[in-house]
Amino acid sequence: MIRAGIVGATGYTGSELLRLLLRHPDTELLVVTSRAEAGRPVSDYFPALRGVCQLEFAAADSPLLKDCDLVFFATPNGTAMQEAPALLDAGVRVIDLAADFRLRDPESWASWYGMTHACPERLPEAVYGLPEINREALREARLVANPGCYPTAVALGFLPLIESGLVDTGFLVADVKSGVSGAGRQAKTGLLMAEVGESFKAYSVAGHRHQPEICQTLTAVQPPGAAAINLTFVPHLVPMIRGIEATLYARLDLSAGHQDAEQLQSLFEKRYQNEGFVDVMPAGSAPETRSVRGTNNCRLAVTLPDDRTAADGRVVVVQSVIDNLVKGAAGQAIQNMNLMFGLAETKGLTELAWAP
Amino acid sequence: MIRAGIVGATGYTGSELLRLLLRHPDTELLVVTSRAEAGRPVSDYFPALRGVCQLEFAAADSPLLKDCDLVFFATPNGTAMQEAPALLDAGVRVIDLAADFRLRDPESWASWYGMTHACPERLPEAVYGLPEINREALREARLVANPGCYPTAVALGFLPLIESGLVDTGFLVADVKSGVSGAGRQAKTGLLMAEVGESFKAYSVAGHRHQPEICQTLTAVQPPGAAAINLTFVPHLVPMIRGIEATLYARLDLSAGHQDAEQLQSLFEKRYQNEGFVDVMPAGSAPETRSVRGTNNCRLAVTLPDDRTAADGRVVVVQSVIDNLVKGAAGQAIQNMNLMFGLAETKGLTELAWAP
Amino acid sequence: MIRAGIVGATGYTGSELLRLLLRHPDTELLVVTSRAEAGRPVSDYFPALRGVCQLEFAAADSPLLKDCDLVFFATPNGTAMQEAPALLDAGVRVIDLAADFRLRDPESWASWYGMTHACPERLPEAVYGLPEINREALREARLVANPGCYPTAVALGFLPLIESGLVDTGFLVADVKSGVSGAGRQAKTGLLMAEVGESFKAYSVAGHRHQPEICQTLTAVQPPGAAAINLTFVPHLVPMIRGIEATLYARLDLSAGHQDAEQLQSLFEKRYQNEGFVDVMPAGSAPETRSVRGTNNCRLAVTLPDDRTAADGRVVVVQSVIDNLVKGAAGQAIQNMNLMFGLAETKGLTELAWAP
Amino acid sequence: MIRAGIVGATGYTGSELLRLLLRHPDTELLVVTSRAEAGRPVSDYFPALRGVCQLEFAAADSPLLKDCDLVFFATPNGTAMQEAPALLDAGVRVIDLAADFRLRDPESWASWYGMTHACPERLPEAVYGLPEINREALREARLVANPGCYPTAVALGFLPLIESGLVDTGFLVADVKSGVSGAGRQAKTGLLMAEVGESFKAYSVAGHRHQPEICQTLTAVQPPGAAAINLTFVPHLVPMIRGIEATLYARLDLSAGHQDAEQLQSLFEKRYQNEGFVDVMPAGSAPETRSVRGTNNCRLAVTLPDDRTAADGRVVVVQSVIDNLVKGAAGQAIQNMNLMFGLAETKGLTELAWAP
Repeated sequence: MIRAGIVGATGYTGSELLRLLLRHPDTELLVVTSRAEAGRPVSDYFPALRGVCQLEFAAADSPLLKDCDLVFFATPNGTAMQEAPALLDAGVRVIDLAADFRLRDPESWASWYGMTHACPERLPEAVYGLPEINREALREARLVANPGCYPTAVALGFLPLIESGLVDTGFLVADVKSGVSGAGRQAKTGLLMAEVGESFKAYSVAGHRHQPEICQTLTAVQPPGAAAINLTFVPHLVPMIRGIEATLYARLDLSAGHQDAEQLQSLFEKRYQNEGFVDVMPAGSAPETRSVRGTNNCRLAVTLPDDRTAADGRVVVVQSVIDNLVKGAAGQAIQNMNLMFGLAETKGLTELAWAP
Repeated sequence: MIRAGIVGATGYTGSELLRLLLRHPDTELLVVTSRAEAGRPVSDYFPALRGVCQLEFAAADSPLLKDCDLVFFATPNGTAMQEAPALLDAGVRVIDLAADFRLRDPESWASWYGMTHACPERLPEAVYGLPEINREALREARLVANPGCYPTAVALGFLPLIESGLVDTGFLVADVKSGVSGAGRQAKTGLLMAEVGESFKAYSVAGHRHQPEICQTLTAVQPPGAAAINLTFVPHLVPMIRGIEATLYARLDLSAGHQDAEQLQSLFEKRYQNEGFVDVMPAGSAPETRSVRGTNNCRLAVTLPDDRTAADGRVVVVQSVIDNLVKGAAGQAIQNMNLMFGLAETKGLTELAWAP
Repeated sequence: MIRAGIVGATGYTGSELLRLLLRHPDTELLVVTSRAEAGRPVSDYFPALRGVCQLEFAAADSPLLKDCDLVFFATPNGTAMQEAPALLDAGVRVIDLAADFRLRDPESWASWYGMTHACPERLPEAVYGLPEINREALREARLVANPGCYPTAVALGFLPLIESGLVDTGFLVADVKSGVSGAGRQAKTGLLMAEVGESFKAYSVAGHRHQPEICQTLTAVQPPGAAAINLTFVPHLVPMIRGIEATLYARLDLSAGHQDAEQLQSLFEKRYQNEGFVDVMPAGSAPETRSVRGTNNCRLAVTLPDDRTAADGRVVVVQSVIDNLVKGAAGQAIQNMNLMFGLAETKGLTELAWAP
Repeated sequence: MIRAGIVGATGYTGSELLRLLLRHPDTELLVVTSRAEAGRPVSDYFPALRGVCQLEFAAADSPLLKDCDLVFFATPNGTAMQEAPALLDAGVRVIDLAADFRLRDPESWASWYGMTHACPERLPEAVYGLPEINREALREARLVANPGCYPTAVALGFLPLIESGLVDTGFLVADVKSGVSGAGRQAKTGLLMAEVGESFKAYSVAGHRHQPEICQTLTAVQPPGAAAINLTFVPHLVPMIRGIEATLYARLDLSAGHQDAEQLQSLFEKRYQNEGFVDVMPAGSAPETRSVRGTNNCRLAVTLPDDRTAADGRVVVVQSVIDNLVKGAAGQAIQNMNLMFGLAETKGLTELAWAP
């Protein structure tokens, strides 16, 4: 049994970790901390856990954290970089679900997150937790930077195109839409149901923190000598609770030869044929976020629009859907845990989506 | 008083016409038809109109239609092209809210709509009802093709960039999202709340009927000698009732000289300074669909993403929001009516959006 | 022109007052205050008002308030009782949309609202602003206590039954459901869309502040010698933005003679035949909240359940729907203003509901 | 392994059975039928099942049904009564999730369901599948009538009060609210998101089919000599997908002695102390439907309203929440299957609710 702890379990990624870990067959949940709710029974805070979880929230500095084999940080950005080093030094492995260890460049991190990185010396050992590109490194990882929700959806959709060098990387577009749980559980007027319900908007159009994370990932998988990635990433807020849909646009680089729809379909199917959580749908499919809701799956579709619409046949469109709290956060963290501890990658992640 | 009629008033564009016309100070609603509900009191079918509308639905061939000064067709595609000619011949002016008269090329129409056009000889006299480009022609129009909802949002967002020749038209992207009322009121499983609620998806990625309509509009406003429009248009379904948001992407054509954010803001503000229904928001704004809900307004914002995200500073992003049933359908039809009959363009269209 | 002011216009009742007053033909909006947003343009705070409202939020103690003919308090409970007296003394009429002047008994008020009443001496002159029972008094009123949203829906539904003495008042049930805007615009975790969306619950079952207000209203209209009102009132939170539905249950007092469905229908129709905002629907109707959304209407239906279900035929069920922000708050306040200033009662309140 | 079949698996109760059975450790899903989709892969129809279910929909008369140990009918009312007898005769056990075997009186059935019962002779052997009252009979049952969704929520809430004889059964009120999935998956205009979203209404106020089912259940558990049950049951439609909340009202029968809140709390806790799926929450709780979403749990709270509100202290209010598709349909069917086949009652039903 893996003795696991969660730091900061009152937010949405934390509560999703609770849901999944309490049903994971190889995990014992040892400690769950919360600054604000220390001493309160977890099942009092989350009535859905009545009868299932007997723990109380512990204080943030609970000594039990050092008794864990693995600690998940489900904290705001800037916490794990302060608290994880002591745990790592004590031999505890760490998965950070926040952004602290995602960017390899501490200056870029400081620029996007507005604070100086507290332990830049730890960045080299952090493994970016996207198993579809880093599986082997994750098996040995002691510190995992769990990817952002948007970067997971966008990277999985672009990967086959970027790895193969088939597209012009000078003008990539990722138009991405997220349910409101992606904005977290803090009490903000702008997230009230009366404010975000029955409305839709883009936000952070001038620049969003997940943009450099996506670029870092895509750049890492480019073939040698490829041109720089120039990605325009625009996030949007959808009046629903869970789910991300990314619609991705790129132009085929015809210098690499013409590609037809079948070849692109085959490219995607081959790339993901051994991936347990990535499902390439048949051509013409319309992946819906609800088809992955509550699950660790990513569903993809790749399309070359109709000849009547794009005279030059060069634009390729990819749709990618995930559950932002599962494959985009807690589920991917469990997938990483499974890899780190030699378990089957799908352990504890087999629940089916609800329909409806 | 304008004597007005509506053919097919049981769908969403029809009922929205009812809402607006019943409160328009210069209109008398003479007749409202419905094949399925003929003989039934309108206020029985739409309880919100109890006490306000005393009409019964008339049969589709009601002779009262010829007594009207203006008839609106709020019918499925393919009806107005059958029935409008007789009214036109009788001296009745017509606004078609369906697609029958939108495409100037009957072959393109047949290709996208799957039927042969019934009166291609009428197409030349049809005026495309986007007042922001066709105001003068609309004043004299006898047959108006009211624009599609997506084309309205997309065209208004792209217009200043296309008219000025500032962008590379070889790779334009329009990622557009609509509330479910845009799909109409027919009983389809795929539109049940239990199917579309709490989910998000793209659809018609391979090609959507509104794509050629947008291209036709944008091509018409290009400067002489401009390169062909190559637009990738992907519509999405949002789990809300009303509203369209279009996020538009283009690359600046640097051969036209560098453009900074202020110049682009100024370009948009000048283009729309005399337009009563188009509001260019300050730089950095995030237009929300609810800010135009129930109104005939279009709100726009134009952004050059952050230098950190787009190394070459060439990508421009435009956000455009409308209410699909008002500026995207019935409201724009009223705006066209006002123009056709010499009224103030905003007459009957001054209601404010609800917040929340 | 009525010179009007609003104290506290950043909440939902305040913004709804703005929407209605800015389109009211006989009102000039002189001043709008906000403690938190003083100095900020109103249209910057509410983008839906761009181009329509040129005011800035004034400080809470703006001297312009005393230049008004009428000031609306859209403030939290406890503010108007502090600030209204000085305005009243200056000859300004006041409508309080909070609860400060609703209960005639200051001890009851203190018990339910947790504070001592600041001006109990003003309570006798306050007129409870439900025009359907207090129309004449409202014409002369200088201080109006605008009713709560729940009490409006419940009182209008019960009135004909209570006034006529036809029901056993010893066990009345009001099961009432409200959209989330009724809970206000404060940033509370429990009102986030991710918390209240896709869920339903009752709250304040042990006792809610609107219960004594309803009892006070119903008691005031009882025939002489009638038995005490014993009302069980349970409010619920509905995952939608606007609207209240009240389902009311009572037992017929057979000592008053048997009543059949037609007699009850007739009782309701007669009671409201001259009321411009109360619509008694035909027997068998199912009033929907959306049929009154955005409007000042209340729609009612009265039903005697099927003989197969209620062996003794004594239970009567009333359904009542309003928009909590309009007839339940700002719209009713405008209706009261119209009465106070001798205008037609429906002035500025003729907008139709949206469908859909 | 239990060899199971589902007749009619394209609706919501059918698809929920699929979700649960495909993950049940002791079940082998042998056959799944659909009249309309015969021959189509199940995972093509339900994309969420891609990679999980290899079956195709079989024809309605598939011979594989007779090879099953247990067949679930997830069909419209009136189908199981035609098709179940042949299966029963072949030794197959049957759980009907429709209403065919719920009412013991075929005349009452005909009156409420509008058709003559096809096999009244089977009614005596049908066991009503509410384990909390019929556990022992269910272990031996060959034909189970799975309860309706509303009756499950209402019966579990009223049971302790009725069994104990503590309340006046002459005027019981059940005000019940359901998400839209309860109305099924048929294409009806009235269930479109644009029609039911952002709105709330009561329906079937004059009489709903679930009323006699509830009365039958409550009558069966009354103490000897108790007075007749007179229940007013009003269902409502909530703009959400899943969940039922029942608010129940009754008056304490003071001839049985005064009851205080603690005694009532204790009554409920004792009644359900050994029930794995019924959770009595602490006094003052507000059970939310989302706390049981996707699970087979029922959460209850019992309240005596505040002395200030109910002068005579006699009214008791019970709140009861379930997921209409799980404890209200497919989950309860699995619970019954577990009992029928000697498995632990919670097998395959341990998944946790999502929060958010």
